[in-house]
Amino acid sequence: MLEELKEKVFHANLELVKHGLVIFTWGNVSAIDRATGLVVIKPSGVSYEKMKAKDMVVVDLDGNVVEGTLKPSSDTPTHVILYKAFPEIGGVVHTHSTYATAWAQAGCDIPNIGTTHADYFHDAIPCTADMTVQEVEGDYELETGNVIVKRFEKLNPMHTPGVLVKNHGPFAWGKDAGDAVHNAVVMEQVAKMASIAYTINPNLTMNPLLIEKHFNRKHGPNAYYGQ
Amino acid sequence: MLEELKEKVFHANLELVKHGLVIFTWGNVSAIDRATGLVVIKPSGVSYEKMKAKDMVVVDLDGNVVEGTLKPSSDTPTHVILYKAFPEIGGVVHTHSTYATAWAQAGCDIPNIGTTHADYFHDAIPCTADMTVQEVEGDYELETGNVIVKRFEKLNPMHTPGVLVKNHGPFAWGKDAGDAVHNAVVMEQVAKMASIAYTINPNLTMNPLLIEKHFNRKHGPNAYYGQ
Amino acid sequence: MLEELKEKVFHANLELVKHGLVIFTWGNVSAIDRATGLVVIKPSGVSYEKMKAKDMVVVDLDGNVVEGTLKPSSDTPTHVILYKAFPEIGGVVHTHSTYATAWAQAGCDIPNIGTTHADYFHDAIPCTADMTVQEVEGDYELETGNVIVKRFEKLNPMHTPGVLVKNHGPFAWGKDAGDAVHNAVVMEQVAKMASIAYTINPNLTMNPLLIEKHFNRKHGPNAYYGQ
Amino acid sequence: MLEELKEKVFHANLELVKHGLVIFTWGNVSAIDRATGLVVIKPSGVSYEKMKAKDMVVVDLDGNVVEGTLKPSSDTPTHVILYKAFPEIGGVVHTHSTYATAWAQAGCDIPNIGTTHADYFHDAIPCTADMTVQEVEGDYELETGNVIVKRFEKLNPMHTPGVLVKNHGPFAWGKDAGDAVHNAVVMEQVAKMASIAYTINPNLTMNPLLIEKHFNRKHGPNAYYGQ
Repeated sequence: MLEELKEKVFHANLELVKHGLVIFTWGNVSAIDRATGLVVIKPSGVSYEKMKAKDMVVVDLDGNVVEGTLKPSSDTPTHVILYKAFPEIGGVVHTHSTYATAWAQAGCDIPNIGTTHADYFHDAIPCTADMTVQEVEGDYELETGNVIVKRFEKLNPMHTPGVLVKNHGPFAWGKDAGDAVHNAVVMEQVAKMASIAYTINPNLTMNPLLIEKHFNRKHGPNAYYGQ
Repeated sequence: MLEELKEKVFHANLELVKHGLVIFTWGNVSAIDRATGLVVIKPSGVSYEKMKAKDMVVVDLDGNVVEGTLKPSSDTPTHVILYKAFPEIGGVVHTHSTYATAWAQAGCDIPNIGTTHADYFHDAIPCTADMTVQEVEGDYELETGNVIVKRFEKLNPMHTPGVLVKNHGPFAWGKDAGDAVHNAVVMEQVAKMASIAYTINPNLTMNPLLIEKHFNRKHGPNAYYGQ
Repeated sequence: MLEELKEKVFHANLELVKHGLVIFTWGNVSAIDRATGLVVIKPSGVSYEKMKAKDMVVVDLDGNVVEGTLKPSSDTPTHVILYKAFPEIGGVVHTHSTYATAWAQAGCDIPNIGTTHADYFHDAIPCTADMTVQEVEGDYELETGNVIVKRFEKLNPMHTPGVLVKNHGPFAWGKDAGDAVHNAVVMEQVAKMASIAYTINPNLTMNPLLIEKHFNRKHGPNAYYGQ
Repeated sequence: MLEELKEKVFHANLELVKHGLVIFTWGNVSAIDRATGLVVIKPSGVSYEKMKAKDMVVVDLDGNVVEGTLKPSSDTPTHVILYKAFPEIGGVVHTHSTYATAWAQAGCDIPNIGTTHADYFHDAIPCTADMTVQEVEGDYELETGNVIVKRFEKLNPMHTPGVLVKNHGPFAWGKDAGDAVHNAVVMEQVAKMASIAYTINPNLTMNPLLIEKHFNRKHGPNAYYGQ
């Protein structure tokens, strides 16, 4: 079932390791098959060295396991909520990558202060609000998804394909699993560059013209970057 | 004698190198066989390249060498004190890993400001008090252990499996040698993320609800992370 | 056509990866054949893993493709402007390397505060002014080149072989593609050391005598470094 | 001539690369044969990839080449001055390693704030004074050596085996070439940890008792670290 998608999700998980975004089992990638509404996701707490493509777990959009002998990632309900709320996305990534997580711990949006950021994210990468007692003590991972969705009320998730969950870490997404990983790598890199830039000049300024220019150079009808 | 434990301690020492926590001979791992009360520990000042499993030294809980031709780590008395004071622990690690050591040099507890920290350490990772003349000029390595134990008077060592010795560096522990190394890696990572987070926002806040949630998600009777 | 130069440009692009200056497709190197006025440049958005020497694109000094089936780097007009304005240069590099980009985002020149800097760059590595609406909404990549050239009105591009484009990132150049990459690596390194140095001491001072001494030790008629 | 020493100096130079202390040709190691007063040193500006043991240059204590077809390191006069002034040392290293150089650019001594530092360096690692017009415009590399020696008037070079040359970078030394490289690696590591520690807590304090304890644990008649 969905063997090709399992291969892609498996390799996308390994890409997280290759790019230095996860240690141990601290990350997970999923992808959705929109035709069937089924999600393929990494199993919970399985080491990247031992994991195989066939270990990927298939769940439905209620988070129920449809196929697989292992438990899916404990963050599965968060992934599912994102797939339901953002119909254009095809892949979701969660990591505790160093600099993005530091911004999440700082409780600050990562401001858009350069073309590296603007090439991929139109706006600041937003940080969610503190979760309430009801959210944390209730269905926590599902509510984590809801808190993200709420933060995107006035944002286009395809134009800002990632978020920081306050005091937790980043989620990123994209049109498929590989694209989601790509955006997670970019987020870590812009998080690092922004933290250094503000150390150099706390009063730095961004030229807003560059945001429109660079975002549109890679996205939308008049994109002209690449082949 | 304890050949299997020697293999585990040997490999746990190599894991320190693999995870970038030690250079040269700056680290040591031990494990205890609770049935016999014997501790297996890395020899002192032997390079990781040349070290073999059979070079591991066996000492008793008074720190006396029971087997082995090499001198045990000079930090052996500290390890022994921890095994005596914390009966649930099975492995101890000492390193001079960069960020955890920087926090120790800063003389500050590493505050619990994110779920990465809360997944492993319930509380701030505490920093010990300055050692006194009597402690430093007396049986120094043994007193280092006593200073750690004193710092844990009101803390559960299984819920906060690590400490910073002021102006020195981190010790971590766990149910066995591998688990202790795992906690040492986590400590270095949360030390790095915390130092960056405070640079971004010196007035950051932690949501205390997340500490209970994440710690209990991985520990205790209702844990549901992993397989 | 220009097969030898294509090989050199291809390998110079791979050097960027080897030195950790680029991830994904975030960088490009070109070189000029001054006899014919033709420029060889990396194709746009092609991954470094799949790229071959024969994929390099040949353009003229108006930016028109003369040979090649792929589209040239979207930054080609910037490269071309630099070759026209700076007749002594033979190679140009653009990256989003971490620390140099952070300085560009900070909007600050990288000050010359050490002999590592002075060995290669006589002056501060300058940061350009904000681009105007006309420049961004017009022929953007060409205007990026013009903004750089304007910043060098009173600077010798062979004595300061690099620049920061504000809120964007570094360009570096040299007598050929390899030399341009070399200068890009040095710029990243001095950017990193300067950001750390100012964190240690915001009021640090440079001894200006060292600038003349070190720059002239490696450049000019009395150079005596190397074989 | 001195073939064994050439091998050692050659390998010590490669150790600099392995430990990440140099890029390109930015470093040099030498060693002295005290019986003959001859110094073996890396040639100037030769890449580490191409260098062979037989390329090492032999010079006398006046800096004259005694054997070798290549020019010796341009820093040779500095090395020679150190060998003449510090009769106990057998090896000298110069690098532009990132964090030690940042401290040199900051113009600050690296304070002794931890046992990692105290295990190798009794005191703060000193930074030299600004060089004068006479020193820079005269025999510059030789005067660099003199400025270092002057800085050590009240310091024991065997107890503090390294220095920061202001706005330049570190020199380290030891009983032989390997020991000098070892001290250069330690200096870079303590430079990094100190810069992070002060970012965490600008008002941190060192327990001076630990300096005596740790330095003497590894040095002097009562040393008990290692085998």
